[in-house]
Amino acid sequence: MKKMVVHQILQDAAYQHAATPVVSGGTILTYEAIFERTVRLAQSFIGLGIRPGTVVGVMAVNNHQYFELHYALSLVGAIIHPINFRLAPEDILWTIQDAQDEWLFLGSGFDELTPKMVPLVHHVVWMGGGDPASPGLDYEALVRAGTFQVPEVAQTVVPQDIYTMFYTTGTTGRPKGIRYTHQQMLSGALQIAHHLALHDTGARLMAHDVIMPLIPFFHIHGWGIPFVAPYIGASLVLPERRDPVGQRDLIRRHQVTWANMVPTQLLMLLAADPGPLPLKILTGGSPLTSGLAQQASNVGIRFSLIYGGTDQLGSAISTAPGLSGPQAIRELSSHLTPFPMVRLEVRDESGSNVPQDGTTLGEVWVQSPWLPEGYVNNDEASSSAYQSGWFRTGDLAVRYPDGHFAIMDRITDAIKSGGEWITGSAIESIISEIPGVSGVAVIGVPDPRWGERPQAIITEAPGVDAEMVRDVLNQAVLQGRIPRFWVPDTIKFVDMLPMTSAGKINKGKLRHSSSV
Amino acid sequence: MKKMVVHQILQDAAYQHAATPVVSGGTILTYEAIFERTVRLAQSFIGLGIRPGTVVGVMAVNNHQYFELHYALSLVGAIIHPINFRLAPEDILWTIQDAQDEWLFLGSGFDELTPKMVPLVHHVVWMGGGDPASPGLDYEALVRAGTFQVPEVAQTVVPQDIYTMFYTTGTTGRPKGIRYTHQQMLSGALQIAHHLALHDTGARLMAHDVIMPLIPFFHIHGWGIPFVAPYIGASLVLPERRDPVGQRDLIRRHQVTWANMVPTQLLMLLAADPGPLPLKILTGGSPLTSGLAQQASNVGIRFSLIYGGTDQLGSAISTAPGLSGPQAIRELSSHLTPFPMVRLEVRDESGSNVPQDGTTLGEVWVQSPWLPEGYVNNDEASSSAYQSGWFRTGDLAVRYPDGHFAIMDRITDAIKSGGEWITGSAIESIISEIPGVSGVAVIGVPDPRWGERPQAIITEAPGVDAEMVRDVLNQAVLQGRIPRFWVPDTIKFVDMLPMTSAGKINKGKLRHSSSV
Repeated sequence: MKKMVVHQILQDAAYQHAATPVVSGGTILTYEAIFERTVRLAQSFIGLGIRPGTVVGVMAVNNHQYFELHYALSLVGAIIHPINFRLAPEDILWTIQDAQDEWLFLGSGFDELTPKMVPLVHHVVWMGGGDPASPGLDYEALVRAGTFQVPEVAQTVVPQDIYTMFYTTGTTGRPKGIRYTHQQMLSGALQIAHHLALHDTGARLMAHDVIMPLIPFFHIHGWGIPFVAPYIGASLVLPERRDPVGQRDLIRRHQVTWANMVPTQLLMLLAADPGPLPLKILTGGSPLTSGLAQQASNVGIRFSLIYGGTDQLGSAISTAPGLSGPQAIRELSSHLTPFPMVRLEVRDESGSNVPQDGTTLGEVWVQSPWLPEGYVNNDEASSSAYQSGWFRTGDLAVRYPDGHFAIMDRITDAIKSGGEWITGSAIESIISEIPGVSGVAVIGVPDPRWGERPQAIITEAPGVDAEMVRDVLNQAVLQGRIPRFWVPDTIKFVDMLPMTSAGKINKGKLRHSSSV
Repeated sequence: MKKMVVHQILQDAAYQHAATPVVSGGTILTYEAIFERTVRLAQSFIGLGIRPGTVVGVMAVNNHQYFELHYALSLVGAIIHPINFRLAPEDILWTIQDAQDEWLFLGSGFDELTPKMVPLVHHVVWMGGGDPASPGLDYEALVRAGTFQVPEVAQTVVPQDIYTMFYTTGTTGRPKGIRYTHQQMLSGALQIAHHLALHDTGARLMAHDVIMPLIPFFHIHGWGIPFVAPYIGASLVLPERRDPVGQRDLIRRHQVTWANMVPTQLLMLLAADPGPLPLKILTGGSPLTSGLAQQASNVGIRFSLIYGGTDQLGSAISTAPGLSGPQAIRELSSHLTPFPMVRLEVRDESGSNVPQDGTTLGEVWVQSPWLPEGYVNNDEASSSAYQSGWFRTGDLAVRYPDGHFAIMDRITDAIKSGGEWITGSAIESIISEIPGVSGVAVIGVPDPRWGERPQAIITEAPGVDAEMVRDVLNQAVLQGRIPRFWVPDTIKFVDMLPMTSAGKINKGKLRHSSSV
């Protein structure tokens, strides 16, 4: 009987899509060749004592070695811990300890933190050629040393075994760890592909697509791409450590047709080169402003938006076609459809579903076959977030009469003014349409009369001033896009907006600086 | 935690696709309305003593009541046994006894067999209005009597519970029974949808399609459509008992875009009306001849071919585009791609994989996550068909260098002449291209010198005679489509070809009549 375990995916791809290319920077391999490398690695791991349940931290960019580790570790039943190297250094060290990583696989480029990480684990493997000054094993030597025979232990791995452990990028307190089994991780990841294929939406996925994951593997395994690509038999182009110019070069050279990225990465990709870029893009993580969407549409990009997160995996995708035009992004945002098997509800504070009127805000509750039971070593956070089979997302949304959803804000980012919600993202979207504006955040600042009032914080742009922004917002009021009381009382300009490690604007930090 | 159990699918559709229509002949309902009816039914079932594990036989055409039973029985954990009413009467009675049906749900139109079936079960429910002369309950009365509250027992149903039991339509001996769990049946059915969506093939399935299952529910639940349609949120048009003219009328009236059927049904559908028919069709069960394919393409039909069966569920689908033209059907037939998670191997008699050369025939072995463990009450057949996690299909196939497959014949239907295989289906396809030919079978007849020699048996057609057929075959030899020794020695004409209950030409019967 075939089992839903991670290494089965690559084993099948090596048989059915043997010659399909896997590009990693300048290296071109195939699923067949990669499978052989993972089997050899797995044999070496067994010799080294990596066993079912051993936790292995991996810190590297999206390259073929990292892709291989997804499968080699599954073959021996080990648990992969993709380390988020964009966390604060002390949080990185903390997650290595909290996850109880015994092994550390290190790519190149982390020299500064290396001396602090190495003592925290038992063994180190150098993926990027190694540091001759430090003790540790060489990744390529392990590939060479192993025999090409699927290890017997692979047969003992079952779908209910823990496969992966990763951390939230919460802006308050320590990151929270979450474990997913093989079945949970695969079901969640593959359902993204199924959902995208079944709908005529911008980032519609097909078996013949050429896929480039720009979402780093430490973010929910690049939103599942290491599993999705071999599962559907698609070519994979791994960007390694490429700047936006290098990424565009790879896209062109290997005729990439599909990519995922957060809006900030898209912004950089567009800034790198004004030429045409006929890509299907799955984006999410933070709101895609209509200004950026318009810019992207102009060069031939089509979108879908994904909704999900570290503590729920993927839950919904916008199923609108996502063609170009200023209306497109609004249509996309208001067409979130839950994946098959996922239930999304928008509830008020009493736990009842809000009216399906497209305007009443409530909190998103999610139920899916791949929800974890809770956070690791954090009963308090677990019991408030995971309740009787549901996950309380902390996100605000509305539901439309046709059943679709729109996510408006994090509850903690939303502004409550005179007892009414103001959704900053709607205001940000309008401001982003002003030519030249590349970054904007609207936050709530304390107000003695209204409780909170919105403040817009905009990155400096030539020719853009507060008066002009106010004019644009007043026009939007006249057009019925926002109520008059949503227009921010204050408009500030800054050099740069603070970002989180997930590439989102850090509104918590902004609120903190505004209130001091 | 959400579980992969059948009733979850409809429960989700009632929430997410509440207003999507479900048409059944002249009746129009919605997923929301249907879900309410199934819940009320389930409550009535509990009152009547239908419990987890109770086996319930259902004998009806594809209508909304039958669709509802798929879910109402799941809600109480009962096992559905879709009775194949095209089996020989004595086999129908035998399967009711072998499955240990306690309940029998009977649609209208089976008056002749009713007196023999009723005594075999404990209770009868009349789905078609009832027979006032016989004892039994009325289906609609059960819907009205139940309360609209999801029964508590639904929570106790798990993916590993048996959901369904149905029978092969074997031409030798008694039908063989097979049971599938919720998880097996759903995984297998839904993977059809995923695979069709991910490929640019003729019967590409999309969430906005309007689906009409012409495959009867007693054949592997109409190839899974009662699960697929609500899962993807597609509209469903159930044909009930419609002749081909009535089917075409329904297709037109409800703008059906996607249908499944065996080639025989397609032939009848085309004969009913020569007008345009812009449909995506999934077909299989028996070879689609190039003549029929051409005829269908001419009216706007696009195809995909599915490979699978009662004892393995679906395994592969042709992923070629399947556009029109005489080449299309050959391309389709040679582009079978296994579903993700399915392994297909073509093995010789020693168990080794045959060369991937597109010509060497071998037997198809299948491995998938939804394979059953064996036949019910039939250890001998089980142990020869199901071996160490694989299913030996008894089908002959070739594998191409690009990894795709073509299924050629059942081993029992293949012809061995002078130690070499002759695949009748290739010869049938050529003969079918002759205008006027609507049915053809090529079988092996005993031959003292060669062991077997091919014989073509063709349904009478005006202007078609043996000499003409021989000419066409000789041309095909010159074109390299078949070797010279494949040309049948004898060509016979008959009024009608014998069919199996699955709509396939009964070659066993033909061989029997030829040898006596």
